Amino acid sequence: MTVEHQPGSRSAGVPADQATVRRANLSLVLRHVSARGQCSRSSVAAETGLNKTTISSLVGELQARGLVKEIGPHHAGSVGRPSLALVLDGSGVGALGVELNADYIAAFATDLAGRVLADRRIGFDAMGSEPERSLDKLGQVIGSTVAELDRRGVALAGLTVAVPGLVDTAGGTVVFAPNLGWRGVPMIERLRSAGVPAGVPMAVDNDANLAALAEYRSGVAVGVPNLIYLTGEVGVGCGIITGGRPLSGADGFAGEAGHVMVDPYGDECGCGRIGCWETKVGLAALVRMATPDRAYGVGPQVVRDPEERLAEIEQRRADGDPRAEAAVAEVGRWLGRGASTLVNLFNPQVIVLGGYFARLAEQLIPVARAELARLGMSVAADRCRFAASTLGFGAASRGGVDVVIERVLSDPTSIAMRP
Amino acid sequence: MTVEHQPGSRSAGVPADQATVRRANLSLVLRHVSARGQCSRSSVAAETGLNKTTISSLVGELQARGLVKEIGPHHAGSVGRPSLALVLDGSGVGALGVELNADYIAAFATDLAGRVLADRRIGFDAMGSEPERSLDKLGQVIGSTVAELDRRGVALAGLTVAVPGLVDTAGGTVVFAPNLGWRGVPMIERLRSAGVPAGVPMAVDNDANLAALAEYRSGVAVGVPNLIYLTGEVGVGCGIITGGRPLSGADGFAGEAGHVMVDPYGDECGCGRIGCWETKVGLAALVRMATPDRAYGVGPQVVRDPEERLAEIEQRRADGDPRAEAAVAEVGRWLGRGASTLVNLFNPQVIVLGGYFARLAEQLIPVARAELARLGMSVAADRCRFAASTLGFGAASRGGVDVVIERVLSDPTSIAMRP
Repeated sequence: MTVEHQPGSRSAGVPADQATVRRANLSLVLRHVSARGQCSRSSVAAETGLNKTTISSLVGELQARGLVKEIGPHHAGSVGRPSLALVLDGSGVGALGVELNADYIAAFATDLAGRVLADRRIGFDAMGSEPERSLDKLGQVIGSTVAELDRRGVALAGLTVAVPGLVDTAGGTVVFAPNLGWRGVPMIERLRSAGVPAGVPMAVDNDANLAALAEYRSGVAVGVPNLIYLTGEVGVGCGIITGGRPLSGADGFAGEAGHVMVDPYGDECGCGRIGCWETKVGLAALVRMATPDRAYGVGPQVVRDPEERLAEIEQRRADGDPRAEAAVAEVGRWLGRGASTLVNLFNPQVIVLGGYFARLAEQLIPVARAELARLGMSVAADRCRFAASTLGFGAASRGGVDVVIERVLSDPTSIAMRP
Repeated sequence: MTVEHQPGSRSAGVPADQATVRRANLSLVLRHVSARGQCSRSSVAAETGLNKTTISSLVGELQARGLVKEIGPHHAGSVGRPSLALVLDGSGVGALGVELNADYIAAFATDLAGRVLADRRIGFDAMGSEPERSLDKLGQVIGSTVAELDRRGVALAGLTVAVPGLVDTAGGTVVFAPNLGWRGVPMIERLRSAGVPAGVPMAVDNDANLAALAEYRSGVAVGVPNLIYLTGEVGVGCGIITGGRPLSGADGFAGEAGHVMVDPYGDECGCGRIGCWETKVGLAALVRMATPDRAYGVGPQVVRDPEERLAEIEQRRADGDPRAEAAVAEVGRWLGRGASTLVNLFNPQVIVLGGYFARLAEQLIPVARAELARLGMSVAADRCRFAASTLGFGAASRGGVDVVIERVLSDPTSIAMRP
């Protein structure tokens, strides 16, 4: 549709008064500096259309908030007086993303300019722990990271928590996270009482949604406005960016691709339904097909040690075991079949493969690609490519940082003036 | 996700200069008057936060463009001097939507205030005609409708054409429309040379996308920001509104739900693929199951006379024919199965049923509902309801009108000052 219908946009209900204009222009200049890395005031003027007096005032305010600084001299061209250059500062503004997953907790923090301040991942058996214990552990990780930022003189501008499950983003509650065994956990409320500083904005979101955002902001599909992120783990996670925006749906539950029915005559899924995509391409399915002689049992315990299982399958393929070879090909075919559904419905430019899909991407992609070509609507399928994620385990917490930074770029006035 | 990431939004690239602010505020006042039906200047001031001087200036400009007018007196309360009331005018501003479908052409036109100026539907065998002939016929319908508007002193503000197929909306080209037998038809270029007045903005879009917009603007799901429109015809069309915006995907091809694979062991679809949803719930599937004794053949000719076929099936059900009863139930089950995919991926609040689904809604919905409850992710499925469309054949052309009106509301300066 060429004309967008935007009943929810600012212009529908809030007047463009002077404060709104000011905020929009502060955001405009900050985004410009952020995108350019380094630029002169006159290039900001030329490219934004704002006059120099306005820009001086805006830059002054951004400096007072510690978001940009001047370095110099900047040579705009071969002729004329060199001027000072504007660069993103934000060295005192920190963004934190944390992820609680089945078997680890990850924390990633940067300042506004992207300098990495923390990047940790610790093993933690959340799958086998009570929610209270997981939340305590997560609170400790957050607390120690915030303390570290504090020591470095960085004030936390926001925190995003990634969880593998259905999240009520508006209420900050984890509605259902099967691989954590959680139902109805009021996460934000709980973490706030566990010591996240008052006044720091917090958000909770699905891990794959945040990973999709990270791919869009800094991964293999950087800047691609229509992308789908898929992660192969115990479950199959999916995050969707459409028209440059994360798709959330009515309640934040969109993107549950793992439980899309792909085979009405198929196996029972962990969720109790029949023929979910996860039963064809989840890690348990691969392990079962590739190593049928192993007594790994059924259910989540099959993949308690995903690294070991994958290493074994890769070894068997290297040794020429036809079962391992066939299992990977079968997963690739079902990956392509499910992808055809996503392509027909979302018309994405890229499908980014994370988790174990990324590790086996070289084998999986050609098979999936052929199956997509066979089943997807031709033009949309032709124009969509697969790409292996390079962000690894850090994708979701990195996406959490992106959410915080985006909030600052949208509203620089959310960062207090320096004393 | 609570924080929206909007790299494509205005604030990312265009300065909020005075012209932009003026346009945004004109839009704000016009939307306010449009939503209220009738209001006073002081209520506009109170609810928008704009001061009265600014409002006077904005209202003056909207009057000069023929978009609002004053009527009076308006009694704001029980005390004080009655003032004039603002109402939407736009009686000289026309919006036109036309639809070319397999067996009819529809045209719908209103003025800005929603007064219906044209509402026509003529039988036309586009399925059996060459594209040139269909375009000629469509051009004639457009030409005579525009002439009629002209006679009534209404200037055309824009035209939207609805087509059942994949549309490259940016290029105005119909990429593939199987039920018209079209491939790569440059529709806008062709209609422009057939006599659409120069300077009138034109757009082409998929019929189901436009019908979804009509449902959102004035149908059974009015104002519901996350909805999916499904239409059961020869094919199964699908239009998606998410977060209050039409979903288009990278190339405008999103929403091809009819060709989502739901049964890897199923029948061949008209598109050449196996197990498409359309093969389970399209009109041909219903006819084949409900009237297996009829020699209607296969392919599109099965449903050349959809009204007759449906009437026959309804008669058989009334007569207690178990095959007809079972066929409707089977379609309902598959409707629910496909809906579970849509619910898991999009988390919509409502699925609106159009086409023959609407006609059989009373029978289809309970069965589909039960199947959705069985297969959809529980919370999302519980929160989604089915509703039968009441817009009938006019849905897509009505959505075309909505696109034009939305463009005027977004930018009132697109309508020229009156001489």
